[in-house]
Amino acid sequence: MQSNPLRDVRDRRLPRIAGPCSVVMFGVTGDLARKKLIPAIYDLANRGLLPPGFALVGFARQDFGDQSFSEMLKAAAQAGARTPWRETVWTQLEAGIRFVPGSFDDDAAWLQLAATMAELDEQQGTGGNHAFYLSIPPGLFPVVVGKIKEHGLADQSGGWRRVVIEKPFGHDLASARELNTLVSEVFPRESVFRIDHYLGKETVQNILALRFANGMFEPLWNSHYVDHVQITMAEDIGIGTRAGYYDGIGAARDVIQNHLLQLMALIAMEEPVSFNAESLRLEKQKILANARPATPMAQHTAQAQYTAGWAGGEHVVGYLEEQGIPEGSRTETYAAIKIDIATRRWAGVPFYLRTGKRLGRRVTEVAVVFKAAPHQPFSKNDIEELGRNALVMRIQPDEGVTLRFGAKVPGTTMEIRDVLMDFAYGGAFVESSPEAYERLILDVLLGDPPLFPQQEEVELSWKILDPVIAHWQREKSIDTYTSGTWGPPTADAMMERDGRTWRRP
Amino acid sequence: MQSNPLRDVRDRRLPRIAGPCSVVMFGVTGDLARKKLIPAIYDLANRGLLPPGFALVGFARQDFGDQSFSEMLKAAAQAGARTPWRETVWTQLEAGIRFVPGSFDDDAAWLQLAATMAELDEQQGTGGNHAFYLSIPPGLFPVVVGKIKEHGLADQSGGWRRVVIEKPFGHDLASARELNTLVSEVFPRESVFRIDHYLGKETVQNILALRFANGMFEPLWNSHYVDHVQITMAEDIGIGTRAGYYDGIGAARDVIQNHLLQLMALIAMEEPVSFNAESLRLEKQKILANARPATPMAQHTAQAQYTAGWAGGEHVVGYLEEQGIPEGSRTETYAAIKIDIATRRWAGVPFYLRTGKRLGRRVTEVAVVFKAAPHQPFSKNDIEELGRNALVMRIQPDEGVTLRFGAKVPGTTMEIRDVLMDFAYGGAFVESSPEAYERLILDVLLGDPPLFPQQEEVELSWKILDPVIAHWQREKSIDTYTSGTWGPPTADAMMERDGRTWRRP
Repeated sequence: MQSNPLRDVRDRRLPRIAGPCSVVMFGVTGDLARKKLIPAIYDLANRGLLPPGFALVGFARQDFGDQSFSEMLKAAAQAGARTPWRETVWTQLEAGIRFVPGSFDDDAAWLQLAATMAELDEQQGTGGNHAFYLSIPPGLFPVVVGKIKEHGLADQSGGWRRVVIEKPFGHDLASARELNTLVSEVFPRESVFRIDHYLGKETVQNILALRFANGMFEPLWNSHYVDHVQITMAEDIGIGTRAGYYDGIGAARDVIQNHLLQLMALIAMEEPVSFNAESLRLEKQKILANARPATPMAQHTAQAQYTAGWAGGEHVVGYLEEQGIPEGSRTETYAAIKIDIATRRWAGVPFYLRTGKRLGRRVTEVAVVFKAAPHQPFSKNDIEELGRNALVMRIQPDEGVTLRFGAKVPGTTMEIRDVLMDFAYGGAFVESSPEAYERLILDVLLGDPPLFPQQEEVELSWKILDPVIAHWQREKSIDTYTSGTWGPPTADAMMERDGRTWRRP
Repeated sequence: MQSNPLRDVRDRRLPRIAGPCSVVMFGVTGDLARKKLIPAIYDLANRGLLPPGFALVGFARQDFGDQSFSEMLKAAAQAGARTPWRETVWTQLEAGIRFVPGSFDDDAAWLQLAATMAELDEQQGTGGNHAFYLSIPPGLFPVVVGKIKEHGLADQSGGWRRVVIEKPFGHDLASARELNTLVSEVFPRESVFRIDHYLGKETVQNILALRFANGMFEPLWNSHYVDHVQITMAEDIGIGTRAGYYDGIGAARDVIQNHLLQLMALIAMEEPVSFNAESLRLEKQKILANARPATPMAQHTAQAQYTAGWAGGEHVVGYLEEQGIPEGSRTETYAAIKIDIATRRWAGVPFYLRTGKRLGRRVTEVAVVFKAAPHQPFSKNDIEELGRNALVMRIQPDEGVTLRFGAKVPGTTMEIRDVLMDFAYGGAFVESSPEAYERLILDVLLGDPPLFPQQEEVELSWKILDPVIAHWQREKSIDTYTSGTWGPPTADAMMERDGRTWRRP
């Protein structure tokens, strides 16, 4: 780890600063690059976390000269930056910006890329360290990864070479394995960084802090005291312009396979020996290896498609009316799955995972719902059934932690009502959260892998999900739900069967 | 229990309404009666919790006619009421107000009192039910209680008769026993109501609700997870005009013996079978019987007197300069005691009790401080020693509950900082809390005793305190602390020896 020599290493405020390197970006003209990656790189530079010897190389079919490419990047950075705009920071960053035009199968272009990288090592001082960021559709991986190898760009003898992959990591176990075989023939395991941007979010890391930096939560964190866990990622938007990507993939593959199963693993895992990548991976893996969809799946899963309805005060069309969706598509936009984790800690405690588009509002949260008190010395007239205590970790928006508990209503009778105790990161800290991509890009450059899922986790997640998707594919039809509601009746019925209800977040 | 026949008994909002009765008040011209008791009776009437057949009889040496007595009460009620003033409510209450002049040893006056009570039973419909409220110095108890008996007023054959006693319940074990013998010769056990107004406060009752209506606190409520408990009652005021009462009594007898030991018992006790008086008493008693001051007392207690200093922006005099304090008085205005509770649940968990006048600010709270996490998978650079989780029950002012826990500071390092999660009764409920005396007077009239300490608890509390006071009396001098600070250095040293610190509430 590089550090600023002017600061004391014991200073806990020490920012981690990347060493000399470049980022080579494939798909640099795409949405993700423009909206997230380029602004994140500017913000990192503005926070002083990038070294002087830093470069950014774009590779795309579109023909930019260096200048107009750099103008496109500047516009993207200005539009998306979270830190204030400082022209001097951009000027310094700009000195390391290059563009290589060409199609991904064009050897001439690859030769030019190699030359550009060598030149940057020389002129810009990137020191032979290069990260290849594959912000491209998975279909293009074989050719790009193949050419990286062919042109010797993965050769780590003169500096580190890393590759960054965005989800989807395959669309089932078999394709995930194929993808991995492809990548691992070129890059060793420790050089592959799979991005799940939820894991770069502050509050996910705060799950680790909350569980393990405190004395009072972990004793309750098991089947003796926890009734069940609900993990929700709800979106209010529809599929937008992503029909081409989304149709045939669906909510479960898009969200549950990666984000929600990773969150589940973080909530359920044993305490790792340390927070290094290997220890974390081991613990998450133990959970994923022991997690199984509850059976019969017909009773413990739900899937559905949104129909026309209302979102944000506007009338919106149903999934089948969205542009680019084939007639009669059976892709699910809502998915809910009950998962059992066969460990001593969690046996008998279901984890309910759900995600959907066009739901009531945008929210991601984990709710640990505790069992009710086993006995209550209250008279029957005083209280009806008590609510259950719940510890809710809100991930977005309004990151924070809420504790729901029962308190006495003021007055002369012993009436108990559920109340909330709340903590909001925004209100408690003056420090602002770095954007997930800032954190993740910095970690790639630092070679610090704890927040990146490994291939084992990817495969184990598909092992959990594949049977559910196979079950759904055997069903004759797909359920529906009205846009703006909280999902299909089958999802509610799935909870009712267990004597529980979904939270309305 | 009387109830409003127009309301369904299953309705949990049902207020408990007293049956026909009168309150006979001794010491009705004193501070407590004027500032607290009379306003509380008006508020109860205004809330509709007193029956039409209600009367209030004053007995004092001062000669009022009924009219001017009732005017004095009206002025007191108007000055102290918490509910809006309604003349009609007062007019109805006034119909049952009587005054009997005379000294407490004057048999003629007692005959008149008996006649007044009989007349009220007849005319006002108080039904032979009378509560004698002894808001008088303990020195007058023998004569008043004796006359009540002599004139047959404690005879319960024609209705219930109850007696209400304010603290102090003696000044040590022997005097408490004497007092009890005196009272119990006249009133059976279930007719004696000892008032500890802290037990009438909402939040004390909320301790019961918090502990037993929730599933998540009780599993942590023991020596495995609790490091220690701090119970604080701090006052910013001095002794004011109470020199005559206070000197020779001191902080420990005035506050620890009753309020703080009762709070301790509520925090430490096992779950009662139900919330009835007998079950609660049994559990509190088990704690008090097993509680002992830690030894050697010289190291685990502290006592001191305030000296001149600042309070609320004003210069204030020291205790010895207060009006009416004898030269060289050694009465303590600050007391701190470490108590060990020899039960399976609490062995090894000290309870620190402290109280004082002229401290930094007025606050009463119970803080359950949890042990730190036994292991932390953080690197040494990331965190220094973590704070301990604490659950703080604030009793006054700003009643509520605060949870202190560690959260990750936003940013790229794993820095943990203590943050607070808060719940305030005032913010959460539209219902306003009844004043402690409202609740307690109503409970006397209803004959509902759970909130009143019993003789056993009084005696057990003196058994805990007597050796500490004896130890202090053997010491040659008394420590001091400056008004407006948080107590003497000896109190801080007492905590430091245990590797702990007092909370700054």
